[in-house]
This record gives sequence, C-alpha cells and structure tokens, in this order.
Amino acid sequence: MKNITLRYYPYNLELAHVFTVSGFSRTSTPTVRVELQYDNFIGYGEASMPPYLGETTDSVCGFLSKIPVSLFADPFKTEDILREIDAIAPGNNAAKAAVDIALHDLQGKLLNIPLYKLLGKDPLLIPPTSYTIGIDTPEVMREKTIEAGNRFRVLKVKVGTDNDLENIRCIRSVTDLPLTTDANQGWKDKEIALDLIFALKELGVVMIEQPMPKENIDDIAWLKERSPLPLIADESIKRFADLKGIEHLYHGINIKLMKSTGIHEALKMIDYARLYDMKVMIGCMTETSCAISAAAAIAARADYADLDGALLIKNDFYTGLNLVDGKITLNELPGLGIIRNKRE
Amino acid sequence: MKNITLRYYPYNLELAHVFTVSGFSRTSTPTVRVELQYDNFIGYGEASMPPYLGETTDSVCGFLSKIPVSLFADPFKTEDILREIDAIAPGNNAAKAAVDIALHDLQGKLLNIPLYKLLGKDPLLIPPTSYTIGIDTPEVMREKTIEAGNRFRVLKVKVGTDNDLENIRCIRSVTDLPLTTDANQGWKDKEIALDLIFALKELGVVMIEQPMPKENIDDIAWLKERSPLPLIADESIKRFADLKGIEHLYHGINIKLMKSTGIHEALKMIDYARLYDMKVMIGCMTETSCAISAAAAIAARADYADLDGALLIKNDFYTGLNLVDGKITLNELPGLGIIRNKRE
Repeated sequence: MKNITLRYYPYNLELAHVFTVSGFSRTSTPTVRVELQYDNFIGYGEASMPPYLGETTDSVCGFLSKIPVSLFADPFKTEDILREIDAIAPGNNAAKAAVDIALHDLQGKLLNIPLYKLLGKDPLLIPPTSYTIGIDTPEVMREKTIEAGNRFRVLKVKVGTDNDLENIRCIRSVTDLPLTTDANQGWKDKEIALDLIFALKELGVVMIEQPMPKENIDDIAWLKERSPLPLIADESIKRFADLKGIEHLYHGINIKLMKSTGIHEALKMIDYARLYDMKVMIGCMTETSCAISAAAAIAARADYADLDGALLIKNDFYTGLNLVDGKITLNELPGLGIIRNKRE
Repeated sequence: MKNITLRYYPYNLELAHVFTVSGFSRTSTPTVRVELQYDNFIGYGEASMPPYLGETTDSVCGFLSKIPVSLFADPFKTEDILREIDAIAPGNNAAKAAVDIALHDLQGKLLNIPLYKLLGKDPLLIPPTSYTIGIDTPEVMREKTIEAGNRFRVLKVKVGTDNDLENIRCIRSVTDLPLTTDANQGWKDKEIALDLIFALKELGVVMIEQPMPKENIDDIAWLKERSPLPLIADESIKRFADLKGIEHLYHGINIKLMKSTGIHEALKMIDYARLYDMKVMIGCMTETSCAISAAAAIAARADYADLDGALLIKNDFYTGLNLVDGKITLNELPGLGIIRNKRE
C-alpha cells in the first residue's frame, strides 16, 4: 500500500485592488489549498470561494474531511474516484474541483508529463486572456486601461450598471483593444438589453456574458435569436449536467473549474459546446496559479480565455505560470507545472 | 527529430463461421493493420472494413498514404493530430480509427501505462460481452446456443427476419441467459415492430438495436415513446457530430470505433449519452484483438459490451485479450496491451 494523504489549508487571497461587481465589493477571497500526496509525489489543488457561490472555508474543509484516502489507491481510476467524491454530498463544487485538480496534477507528475499533454492539448493555442478593468471614476478607468493595454490583448468590462455605455466609451477613448463584457445578470428588460447590445457592438465590444437573470429563460432565448454579439452563459450553468438544451439559450458557455467541479467535467462541457457549434470560454475566480494553471491546461482552442485571476492577487502561493504577450503560458514541468513559493 | 513512420498492411480476417445478417453473408472481412512507430515504440491500430460501410483496403491505404508523419512529431497533441487527419478527407471513418487507435496505443507505451488507465477507466467494470448466435436451422441454433452458454453471459440474436419470434423461442428453449437483439433496420412497420418488441420482452429479450430504417425518423420517435425495451441506435449514428438530438429517438447508442473514427470521439459520445441518461453500448466489427482491446479500454461502466469480434476469427494477429467468465479482460501491459503473434 502506498503512503497516501489528503491535506488542506485555508488560505486567504489578498486582492491587489478592491474588486467590485454590481452588488459586491471585496478586498480578499478565501481559498483552500489541497495537497494530495501519493508516496513522494504531491498533487496540488485549490478551492476558491467567492462569497456569492455559497461555499466557505468551513464547508470546503468539512467536505474534504469526508473523503477516504483509500479512494486514491489507484490514482488513475479517475472516473470512479471522482464519481465517489461527487456522491459524498451534492453541491460543494469548488471543494470537488480542488480534489479534481490535485488528482490531475498528481497524475501528470506520476507519468512525468505536463497536464496539457496528458489531456492532448497544445498550450500554444490558448487564446490571449482578457483582463478586467474595474468600474471606477472615468479618470481611474482610463488610467487602468492604458496600463492594461500594454500587457493584454483583450479587456473585459463589467456591464449591467446604470452607466454601461458611458463606461465603455470612457475605456474605448484610450484603447483599440477588443472588449468583452459581463452583465452578471444585470439587465432586467430584454428590449433595453438588445438596444444596449447593438450599441456596445458599435463600440467594439465582441461578446457579452450572462446578459439577464438566469431564471428569465424566455427572455434569454428571445435575446439570443436577435443579438448581434455572442451571448455567453455564466451564472446559468455550473457543471456538465446543466448543459442540456443550453444551445437554445446561448451562443456559448463560460466554463470555470470552481463551478464545473474541476477538469474532468470541464472537458465534457467543452465537447458538448463544440458539438452544438457554441463558443467556449474558459474563465476563473480569484485563484492562485494552481487553479489558473489547471484552467489553462484545458484552454487550448477556446474562443475566450479569462484567466486573470492569479494576476489580481498579491500573495500567489505558487510560481510557474507566466503572462507573455497577453497570453497565459504553461511550462514543460510535469502536472500543472507549478512550484510552491512559500513555506508554512 | 524522432524517427517516425506510419506503416500499414492489408490483412484478411478469416471468420470461424459464415456470418449472416439479413442481406449479407460472408466468410472473411478485410482489415488494414497500422503501425505507428516513434523511435523504438510502436503503436498498433486497425481499420476493419465490413462491406456495407463502404471503405475498402484501397480506400484505407489511400487515405493513410496522405497522412504526413510530421503530424506525430509531438504524439501528445492528440486534438490537433486528429483534427488534421480528419480534415484530409470526409468519411474514411475506419481509416481514421486505425490511426487514432495506433496513436493511443503509442501514448500508453511512451508513458508506460495501460491505455485504460490513461483514460481513467477501470477495466474490471467492463460488462460481460454479448456473443452473437447466427441465424440458422433450429438444430444448429440450439447447438450453438448451448455451446455459447458455457462461455458467455449475454447472447445476441439478429432479428428483422420473417421468423424473429420462432428464432428467439428456439434459442430461449435451451438457455436462460439475457438476450440482446439487433434488427439492423429490418422492421419496416412501426406497429408491427412494437408488437414484436412486446413479444420479445416476454421471451427475455433485454434490448433492441436499430429496429427500423434510419431514415424513418418519425417512426423511430414513435416507437421510442412506446417501447418497453431500450432501443439502441446503431446505423443511425456514426460519430460524435451525429448525436445532436439523438436523445429524442433512442434510449441508447451503439458506439463502434470503426464508425466513430476511433477512441477520441467515442469518449465524447459516451459523455453525451450519459448527459441525457442514455444507455451506452460499446460494439465492434469483425476485428483483431487490436481494435477490440481499444474498444474494451473505453467500455468500463457501459451498459452493454458487444466485443466478440476477435473471438469470431481464426487468424487473430495479436494476443493479450482474454475472455474470462464471459468478460473481455485487459492486462497490465502499456497501451492496448497486445503483442503481435505473427511475423510477416
């Protein structure tokens, strides 16, 4: 029998700047770091818990404490391991993702191969990551846009406020980069939303996430038929099972590991989206390089990568990930390719 | 640069018994064996060409000759390699499957891990394989059924003839095993088909493949709503792209590597079927242990395995696959786990 342990450590991510989405403002995000040790190999995983998704440090650690390490006796029985873990309790998607990520990192290390290779992906095909310009005073937004314009090739802006067009015009005044937008369910009226979408398109916006509340199915379907820009499901979907019929509502899906329960289901979600000629976006929460590297490992040939999560924190726990010419780049180390840069 | 070659050899599979499906009778099946060599590692693949699918030794060899071996320079860029190969020409599914299988075998060998592990599957969860009892005189059918009853735990019978119930009663008279059936599009009238299905259920039939012609979409949908037995799509679907909306027509799908273009798409097909709570059947053509081992590597947790293809031939080219207690078993060798047992 191998020496197998599953360890987990609460870790607070400190944001470099205050993060504001309509309704929320915060300066840190709690995460739980996971280490799945199998003899001398350690797979790293991470659960990130933005407050609006309902998981907490306690819920994650509680869930992880229920996982018998005997499950990992053969760490290549991916399907059965993740099936058993999923059956422990419903929900807990970030906690499940943390184990899924650690397991995949471990597998890569055991086979001495980068995770993206194990998954058959070419990391050179990861699209440039978008970088979010926070809503702020016009002066600050212009300043941040100019700064970001030197490092990124796509910028993302939150919409769904009362000043969408003003904000976009402000940012557009100092950059020619393509802009993606995220309404976070913020638009309540479909006709107004459609007018806004046409106006945003004129301003060089290329895509819109979650334009309306996820419950407004009929409005979303109506909007999808008419929108001149691709509409991407975010809050509307979490994991694979949520995708049934999604092709009737959206032009694409935003896949985030913390929603999908990890890499295993995220890959199925990509395949489903491609079957229906839908756009694929690989997104993230505020996360260390651990979860971001995992997301990047599956992001080859995605239409949109929104993987700025680790660039927004002051206390990343790992190194290995780099931003080169606006793209997240992965190295040739086995597994996720990350190395701890702190000692506890 | 590594030494990479793609070699292929026509090989004729000699059937142990004459094989009869309504409309066809034959004593051999042409295949093309493929060897993808990467330095000192050789991945084995196979294209099997039952005549009704339209591929020939010439078409397969012609297709393979168009594949530049430089594609395999990094043999872990699975997605890109198979995308390029797919783009060479439409169709040619068996030829594409041969390369896909060889590539997966090679990857397992390069990583020194069995293919089923690389795919995260537990081979102990492969269901018992069905074994086909050919339609013949009652005496011969009874004899073959008794013989097969000692080795197998599920028997398969072709229906869609004028004597379906008589044939099933004949077989049922000498066995208590569950029976699967394959109508090969043989029933033309939906009402008669439904009556037959109810009668077959009474006789211990557990599933029916492709009851009606694949073009009869409305009849198939009608039958699906009413059938007391699961109806499984075979001729109706080949590869992943064919699955859109299939959940409205069938209760399950029969995935065969020679139809699906290989393992890569077959895995996506399994995921799609599971999303819609459909049954998964992993089937085969007449094939050597090469393609059967590849199919077995993805058959864990399938509802039905129909992997008797290599058991029906006299001149298998490989060893490694075994039938134990009615189940196809895989070994712990890297890749497909097969070894050539002949020299040219």
